[in-house]
Amino acid sequence: MLPFSRVTIIGLGLIGSSIARAVRDYMPTVRLTLHDADPAVRERVRALDLADDVADTAGAAVIDADLVMLCVPVGAMGAVAEAIAHDLPADAIVSDVGGSKASVIAALREHLPDAVIVPGHPVAGTEHSGPDAGFASLFKSRWCILTPTPEAPEAAVERLRAFWQAFGAQVEIMDPKHHDLVLAVTSHVPHLIAYTIVGTASDLEDVTQGEVIKFSAGGFRDFTRIAASDPTMWRDVFLNNREAVLEVLQRLTEDLTMLQRAIRWGDGDTLFDLFTRTRAVRRSIVEQGQDDAAPDFGRKH
Amino acid sequence: MLPFSRVTIIGLGLIGSSIARAVRDYMPTVRLTLHDADPAVRERVRALDLADDVADTAGAAVIDADLVMLCVPVGAMGAVAEAIAHDLPADAIVSDVGGSKASVIAALREHLPDAVIVPGHPVAGTEHSGPDAGFASLFKSRWCILTPTPEAPEAAVERLRAFWQAFGAQVEIMDPKHHDLVLAVTSHVPHLIAYTIVGTASDLEDVTQGEVIKFSAGGFRDFTRIAASDPTMWRDVFLNNREAVLEVLQRLTEDLTMLQRAIRWGDGDTLFDLFTRTRAVRRSIVEQGQDDAAPDFGRKH
Repeated sequence: MLPFSRVTIIGLGLIGSSIARAVRDYMPTVRLTLHDADPAVRERVRALDLADDVADTAGAAVIDADLVMLCVPVGAMGAVAEAIAHDLPADAIVSDVGGSKASVIAALREHLPDAVIVPGHPVAGTEHSGPDAGFASLFKSRWCILTPTPEAPEAAVERLRAFWQAFGAQVEIMDPKHHDLVLAVTSHVPHLIAYTIVGTASDLEDVTQGEVIKFSAGGFRDFTRIAASDPTMWRDVFLNNREAVLEVLQRLTEDLTMLQRAIRWGDGDTLFDLFTRTRAVRRSIVEQGQDDAAPDFGRKH
Repeated sequence: MLPFSRVTIIGLGLIGSSIARAVRDYMPTVRLTLHDADPAVRERVRALDLADDVADTAGAAVIDADLVMLCVPVGAMGAVAEAIAHDLPADAIVSDVGGSKASVIAALREHLPDAVIVPGHPVAGTEHSGPDAGFASLFKSRWCILTPTPEAPEAAVERLRAFWQAFGAQVEIMDPKHHDLVLAVTSHVPHLIAYTIVGTASDLEDVTQGEVIKFSAGGFRDFTRIAASDPTMWRDVFLNNREAVLEVLQRLTEDLTMLQRAIRWGDGDTLFDLFTRTRAVRRSIVEQGQDDAAPDFGRKH
């Protein structure tokens, strides 16, 4: 029993193309239609043979879908919703994979006032972008958060849950605003910090970029992975989850100031206590299967 | 032609025990003597059969060495130097693996005024600690920085270079103060930020620790690896490289404030420009063999 039989994916970057591959692998009888605003991406997706059909317009792509999955940067959600509004079947479920949810719900609702909308966010990804970067197992053992609007029928939410579970994902239902705060902590602020520290390091006058790169195995290289993520996607996340990001950033800055003070005044106990406490968090993440227990994430030695 | 024939390693954590294993693998004819201040570690190292001899005192360990390698936290270097001063052979070379160099040189020089001292720092490690965590290939393709004192004979520096190169490391000679600044950027501040962000996340009232762990694949988990590193070692690094760490931290805070402002005022161009620039740094690190090109560092999917 498949939850959907005609799936349309709009936006074929890392996440969209991974969903396409997962549909092909786990639901081979589903009729799969794709669309991307970029003609070069459409051409590449045709060459990769990821779907039954690659439509040239968003409207044509959704015309007989029972699930429409929007996989564009969150700043583009409103424009895509507007583009499909006229052709969207009345009984289709609209979902998305955007990293911020309150803003996406507002953008979709504006252009699709009567549609069944069940926003979602698979907490998975890599630092690579584009249709070639996707793979079917990306969502395996990862969490997908659904933030359904109050008016969404329970049955629609359950169908989406079954869709994600078919790819090996675990599903959590959450309030959109709470999602935005949780993800500010676990994803958005870490990305912002990674971007900042990589920028700071490459701007120093007294240390060359060559030195930064050579000696990056001291810890810096861990930050560069997420600082290589898609710039458009992340710009949109920060602009659309402004409040939660600024709130978490404020907390982080306070904590950093406290540590800065501890270093300045030689307060070793404060440092030692924090450094001991943070080990336990890592242990839990590994125990719960959200990361690799091998040293260095399992990098080759 | 081996650079040394009787090597003593004091301190048998991740680095010391990795050097022991590398000596065994790459220089099997070297006579290897070990010592650790902790009796339980000495017992474990005897059980692991890592050396010809495990001495019960630091003095006994160095008595006929031609290389003495100090692998203790930087805050303990002075005490170890004092403990070996009486038994150190006049022609032995003393080296170390500490993460800060100016403070270590001062501590060693105080207690060993006449010794040949060639301080070093292999820029390699994992988040695991203790004698079981070490492995012989840890230094392969990594850099080892030597910061010889002006009075150290060139021949001593060259012997140390040959020692590290035998393990597959690349060697760079650097001024101690410059080392401390470069490592503040590439290692110390990244660790401090990782510790901070993991601490901040676990202190929030509105987001549970369970949520932080569950959704850590959004980026947060990358930070937790280095935030699981040895607390004593890192406390000592921050207390002993105070000036450089505070200087880099100040830069980072300014850059973070600028981004915070860009988010608050909706300045997408500033964000996009930085996010594009940081991708190039990642690319260089991968190209120069200091990290894995596979998505997610090569984590399993």
